[in-house]
Amino acid sequence: MSQLIETCKKLKKATQVLVIADTREKNKALAQVALSLQKNTEFILQENKKDIENARATGMKESLIDRLSLDKKRIEDMIEGINTIIDLKDPVWKSNDVWTLENGLTISKMTVPIGVIGIIYESRPNVTIDAFALTLKSGNCILLRGSSTAIHSNRALVMAVKEGLRNSSITEDVIGFIDDVDRAVVKEMLILNQYIDLIIPRGGDELIQFVVKHATVPTIETGVGNCHVFVDESGDIGKALNIIENAKTQRAGVCNACETILIHKNIANEILPKLNNRIADRVELRGCEKSRSIVNMNEATEEDWSIEYLDFIVAVRIVDSIDEAIEHVNKYGTKHSEAIVTENLNNANRFLREVDAAAVYVNASTRFTDGSQFGFGAEMGISTQKMHARGPMGLNELVTVKYTIMGNGQIRE
Amino acid sequence: MSQLIETCKKLKKATQVLVIADTREKNKALAQVALSLQKNTEFILQENKKDIENARATGMKESLIDRLSLDKKRIEDMIEGINTIIDLKDPVWKSNDVWTLENGLTISKMTVPIGVIGIIYESRPNVTIDAFALTLKSGNCILLRGSSTAIHSNRALVMAVKEGLRNSSITEDVIGFIDDVDRAVVKEMLILNQYIDLIIPRGGDELIQFVVKHATVPTIETGVGNCHVFVDESGDIGKALNIIENAKTQRAGVCNACETILIHKNIANEILPKLNNRIADRVELRGCEKSRSIVNMNEATEEDWSIEYLDFIVAVRIVDSIDEAIEHVNKYGTKHSEAIVTENLNNANRFLREVDAAAVYVNASTRFTDGSQFGFGAEMGISTQKMHARGPMGLNELVTVKYTIMGNGQIRE
Repeated sequence: MSQLIETCKKLKKATQVLVIADTREKNKALAQVALSLQKNTEFILQENKKDIENARATGMKESLIDRLSLDKKRIEDMIEGINTIIDLKDPVWKSNDVWTLENGLTISKMTVPIGVIGIIYESRPNVTIDAFALTLKSGNCILLRGSSTAIHSNRALVMAVKEGLRNSSITEDVIGFIDDVDRAVVKEMLILNQYIDLIIPRGGDELIQFVVKHATVPTIETGVGNCHVFVDESGDIGKALNIIENAKTQRAGVCNACETILIHKNIANEILPKLNNRIADRVELRGCEKSRSIVNMNEATEEDWSIEYLDFIVAVRIVDSIDEAIEHVNKYGTKHSEAIVTENLNNANRFLREVDAAAVYVNASTRFTDGSQFGFGAEMGISTQKMHARGPMGLNELVTVKYTIMGNGQIRE
Repeated sequence: MSQLIETCKKLKKATQVLVIADTREKNKALAQVALSLQKNTEFILQENKKDIENARATGMKESLIDRLSLDKKRIEDMIEGINTIIDLKDPVWKSNDVWTLENGLTISKMTVPIGVIGIIYESRPNVTIDAFALTLKSGNCILLRGSSTAIHSNRALVMAVKEGLRNSSITEDVIGFIDDVDRAVVKEMLILNQYIDLIIPRGGDELIQFVVKHATVPTIETGVGNCHVFVDESGDIGKALNIIENAKTQRAGVCNACETILIHKNIANEILPKLNNRIADRVELRGCEKSRSIVNMNEATEEDWSIEYLDFIVAVRIVDSIDEAIEHVNKYGTKHSEAIVTENLNNANRFLREVDAAAVYVNASTRFTDGSQFGFGAEMGISTQKMHARGPMGLNELVTVKYTIMGNGQIRE
């Protein structure tokens, strides 16, 4: 039996523990994990150093090394994150939907844990702790498959989690870690339908497409964001400039950053030079032919409409109407976050209704699409597909439902 | 461009019509379709005859021919079904969840159509109409792939639907029909992620496994039901006999029928002979060793615990405890419908909480797991997996969500 199957069997068995664990037990276990992280800080940092040394040796960019690096403050932040999740409401065994049939049967649509959730991630080591804490609180077991570049850090973090769990009433088997950097293991994981209920890939487009292509286990796609800001002809110039600047530059390497600006032709002459003055020192603008006739900038090719730059580059296109803007967004967007700047109520409503995306904004920056901004406390990722969960996935997205039916002998006529 | 891609492009385009259609428009379109079905009854019956003749020629069983057959009454039932759906509440553009952040942004979690839904079905021709009416009412376009044995009937029904739609404000392109009996087309359909948002396979286990294995489009598994009734030691004998008889014999060929009976050892001597008297004239019992020491019956092998008989056969097993019963159900069940007969409150609660299934019953027949029984009016199928929808899928399961965010210039700090 492979290591993976053995881990999965333990996880599957542990779901039966979590499905009946009450909130107090889960919170106590989380508190023990927080304590253990504190206690093991030195060890975790020491293991993290190995990853950083390896990364440097293989020539990793400094910005990525920063993402990988841990220090005391970042471990304190992880602990703070666990404490936030302890304070959140337990999402399990709740109902907003209970009704009674004529024959006296009472049906309750109850929330229940999903079971075993797999997460495949390329991101920072803190995802290991965030994902564990969210799944434990929602009564799920977690199978972690982190990046090979963070293997020492993740191994140490999982060790600390397990040590914490051993001081609680919840078995350490609720967390499983794939300690194997071979991608073949990912492929094996993707078809283990009998053990894994859901797989969430968190990373770049290539990882997500790999998972969607090979998985028979249900998956939730996350995070790829080709987001737009559309300035309607009635848009307020001041709001538009603030929103575009914020959506593009507040953090350029994130999924909810703006990648293309669409501008109504009747406002383009006024706003484009101002926009250029505001951001061109930090951002490369790539424009359509009409844009370039107003402001001098590089040319945008067809490819630019589809690219998620994740960088200080933005594409600019002038459109004839809101219809053309909506069509552009629905054609090239990745259904993540889309914004309109307008003072026209009808156009605001049309954009909200007709644009197909997880989050649609009127007069606000796309940068708000985020679990903690939305008030969810933390998130497992941002779903860009339509099944089960859409947008930021917090505790309430990590449950499924079960109909419980109470009778006293009813049979069907 | 293949016929399939052409159909998909039309469907995708039509989603933009349906996403803004109001309830009145959708209901008027449904009413026109009902009228058209009435008007085309003779033609539909005539086409249905061709399918029946072909089926007889290939030696189809009479019970299956009955499922395939249409008559005036069955077409009236389809029309009645459409009228029921007209009366149901529109599930689109609703919210139970609107909140405002400290910065003044108001976030609404709105229900929206999913987009293009594909359904692959082996069942009766009425599924063509049910599925169309449910998806239209929920603002979705539908791509139908019915059984080759019903090709003439389905073609005639789709023609009638399109004729009805032409008398309404909603384009006939909201319905697409795969008029090709080659299974290669199904395989092609399963990977059209850019056009299809969800595929629902409705049929036997083989079809569902084929779809899960080959699909990259998200799918919802439906309908395979290896359902159990567990008689606890405190169970009321009268209720138990009624429930088992109903769950097994009221209709044996359906997914929510009981396939295995589990009996606590302390009540087995009393109930098994009575059960045998009650149902053995119609039902073949296959028992574990202990069962056979009480009542003379055929032997159940390991295989019997996993089979969905869909027939007048039932497996019987005596268990030592509720723990063993729950373990058996979670090991062999298909997460469809499970029942406990008990007068013990603690055991009722344990069964409800610990059994992993879409519908869990206390003292009632498993036969109630059904959209119309639950009060949903109609159903697209019964989901036996955990993502997005679980149990009977009515209108409320055919929508996804979109966060709409209203601001007045907010940017992220």
